[in-house]
Amino acid sequence: MKRTQIKDIKEYDGQVVIVSGFVQEIRNLKSMQFLVLKDITGAVQITVFKKPDNAELNQIVNELTVQSSVSIKGLVHVDSFVKLNGVEIIPSQIIVANKSIAPLPIDLSGITESGRDLRLDWRFLDLRDKKRQLIFRVQTICEMAMREYWINNGFIEIHSPKLVPNPSESGAELFELEYFGRKAYLAQSPQTYKQMAIASGFERVFEIGPVFRANKSSTNRHDTEFTSVDCEFAWIDSVEDVMEFEEKWIHYFLTRLKETLGDEIKEVFGREVIVPTLPFPRITMSVAKEIIKSLNYEVPPETKGDLDPTAERLIGKYFEEKHQHQFVFVTEFPVAIRPFYHMFADDKKSTLSFDLLWNGLEVTTGAQREHRYLVIIKQAIEKGLISCEAIDDSGNVVEDKIPIGLKSYLDCFNYGCPPHGGYGFGLTRMLMNILGYENVREVTYVYRGVDRLYP
Amino acid sequence: MKRTQIKDIKEYDGQVVIVSGFVQEIRNLKSMQFLVLKDITGAVQITVFKKPDNAELNQIVNELTVQSSVSIKGLVHVDSFVKLNGVEIIPSQIIVANKSIAPLPIDLSGITESGRDLRLDWRFLDLRDKKRQLIFRVQTICEMAMREYWINNGFIEIHSPKLVPNPSESGAELFELEYFGRKAYLAQSPQTYKQMAIASGFERVFEIGPVFRANKSSTNRHDTEFTSVDCEFAWIDSVEDVMEFEEKWIHYFLTRLKETLGDEIKEVFGREVIVPTLPFPRITMSVAKEIIKSLNYEVPPETKGDLDPTAERLIGKYFEEKHQHQFVFVTEFPVAIRPFYHMFADDKKSTLSFDLLWNGLEVTTGAQREHRYLVIIKQAIEKGLISCEAIDDSGNVVEDKIPIGLKSYLDCFNYGCPPHGGYGFGLTRMLMNILGYENVREVTYVYRGVDRLYP
Repeated sequence: MKRTQIKDIKEYDGQVVIVSGFVQEIRNLKSMQFLVLKDITGAVQITVFKKPDNAELNQIVNELTVQSSVSIKGLVHVDSFVKLNGVEIIPSQIIVANKSIAPLPIDLSGITESGRDLRLDWRFLDLRDKKRQLIFRVQTICEMAMREYWINNGFIEIHSPKLVPNPSESGAELFELEYFGRKAYLAQSPQTYKQMAIASGFERVFEIGPVFRANKSSTNRHDTEFTSVDCEFAWIDSVEDVMEFEEKWIHYFLTRLKETLGDEIKEVFGREVIVPTLPFPRITMSVAKEIIKSLNYEVPPETKGDLDPTAERLIGKYFEEKHQHQFVFVTEFPVAIRPFYHMFADDKKSTLSFDLLWNGLEVTTGAQREHRYLVIIKQAIEKGLISCEAIDDSGNVVEDKIPIGLKSYLDCFNYGCPPHGGYGFGLTRMLMNILGYENVREVTYVYRGVDRLYP
Repeated sequence: MKRTQIKDIKEYDGQVVIVSGFVQEIRNLKSMQFLVLKDITGAVQITVFKKPDNAELNQIVNELTVQSSVSIKGLVHVDSFVKLNGVEIIPSQIIVANKSIAPLPIDLSGITESGRDLRLDWRFLDLRDKKRQLIFRVQTICEMAMREYWINNGFIEIHSPKLVPNPSESGAELFELEYFGRKAYLAQSPQTYKQMAIASGFERVFEIGPVFRANKSSTNRHDTEFTSVDCEFAWIDSVEDVMEFEEKWIHYFLTRLKETLGDEIKEVFGREVIVPTLPFPRITMSVAKEIIKSLNYEVPPETKGDLDPTAERLIGKYFEEKHQHQFVFVTEFPVAIRPFYHMFADDKKSTLSFDLLWNGLEVTTGAQREHRYLVIIKQAIEKGLISCEAIDDSGNVVEDKIPIGLKSYLDCFNYGCPPHGGYGFGLTRMLMNILGYENVREVTYVYRGVDRLYP
């Protein structure tokens, strides 16, 4: 006999089913025993009468502990008097698959939530909660819809190497390791390799995979390993194409999420999944600065022209209130705070790049990339990554002045790499926005940070 | 005007289109110039007449180099006399998006294939070949269909940590790194964390992600980083459930592959995608040994009861010839060559585990896992991973004799973890089987091995 999922049992009124899951509650009364059994789809009451015929079952329940896993065979009885979902199961057999020890190291009754650190130490128990399980069901639906949208639009999936010979981004916050007598690093982003796929003629590529940052901060947004959602595509006309693609992609996966888990998210988290209207608002950095000023806030000078989290929140709130929109693209970021591979605007002051704010939280950095060999070398020189001797007096590149660490990347642009752009998107920040979490530790399956490498 | 993909241009006979891609060939004749332009979907001939009206176009073609990326606007002319696919484009505009330098460091003309090492040094050029691009389009379709099958069957996607506090498998071949004053390791498999998801009540999980092995071998099958395809599911009745799930899953994604890219694979690789019949044949290890013996081969004693690659090939060939089947499950692997977390059979000699051979190549190891705390500790003692003092004279576990490195894993089984099983599947071996490659370096996007950390 096949197992029935708890969400479906009401369809089996008057019939015998097998259900399997964790025992969430045990109440042993004078004439009755009640269990609450939970699987990934829901919970159901198991009602055991105390009577001689049930002696064996009564004994099993007497010895049962919460969080044990059991399989129960019994008669489904739909009854509106049953508080939990109007249905109960009258068991004829209870098989204890694996008995839990007691007491549990963290509180799973929902009465007093245990401290976060203790919960993370016992993450596998922490995740037995239906609220936390829903986080990863949301993640599953969103990622699958993202990939569907990409593949429907001709994208190829890549798995870029995480062991890399050179720093992929700034050179700071790098994890280093011994690699057969030389140094290797853990990739901080798939940037180099997704652009390499463009140079390979793959035209449109995506990757969802881990990236690593040896970040010493221990705030509610920092981690040392996270899942990066990335795509890159060729033959764009401008950075506008990148934003237009991204907003449609977000629209697609949020529509899917609302259709599939919208009701459950509302029930469990009390939150509506909001599918944004298209197009998203777009503002330039200078307009963003004016809005912030009008709200009596000034970004501290240390940010060098960037927005700080407070400014991002203010802009988010402004667009939420004024335009009823949770999203806003901020464009024309200054050259000073963007990497050398973003395409610079003609004025050489701003870049053809953007950030996407979602409820005032940055979830994306995107850009048109510089694909012209000579230009990107000039930009790398301007950023101090290459010596100015790499271009001679006649304006030609001096190959042996290109640092070895940049060579394989820059080579890509010397053999006809087409114009392209792309973006990276933060999976955990998405989950924080959809479900209302403030801490990345809650929405990461197994969190890694400066003070956590366990379990 | 929007770009048209080359595979679609025949539908635009007599109309003006824009196509974009790499210049694959340039032939400059007395009265004509021919280009072959290639995008990810195909190749087309561009025909430029030499005449005064075309002076500008003729000049552009004169200066063009192969592998430059260009956009071409022109009239589609379907003409059965054109050798390349019976269609040409008569351009009115050629825009050189990015000019390639010449000569190229590797041969892309198809006349004399460059050596593998040189090709891998210039992987982004190597991948411009349509054959190599098809490898990753096959990978994309297969992975997407795998996930579809999982999600249709209620699986949750996880991203397990790659930075881990302890060896995930044997302890050998580990990459080690400094992690804020302590040691961390790169995960060799997601095994621990997918089983943790089962203990979390996720019931059914999958992950496609990188794993790392500090393997010093440099054969055609060894690498130091590869993409592992993994799933694990709860409430199984036996290891048979695991095999039954896997064969249906393989049947599903190969059916999808055949439908979508079957014709193209036949055209480019000359190979048929074979969708296997269900169920796959199953043989026990002892039957496998008999077959090998009947074929006059003896497995060398160093394998300790395992099959070596030769034996695997022989068994694959036997089933191909005798039963017209590319797949065969080999079951009942001896305890001696299986890890402690596989469920041991009642005789304590064999395990409830299997390998799956595909054309005589091992593509999967799977098993029912041991989910009972006391039993798995005994198995770990038997394997020498835990001292026998971890169980006292009354048969109870002595918690402080459990090594710290195994504690978080073993804890999972002490709190009601349900029965479960799963398998890992090799993505590159799948590609080698489908497309007929012998070397993992060819089917990995950017290969990593003992002597290769570049590009």
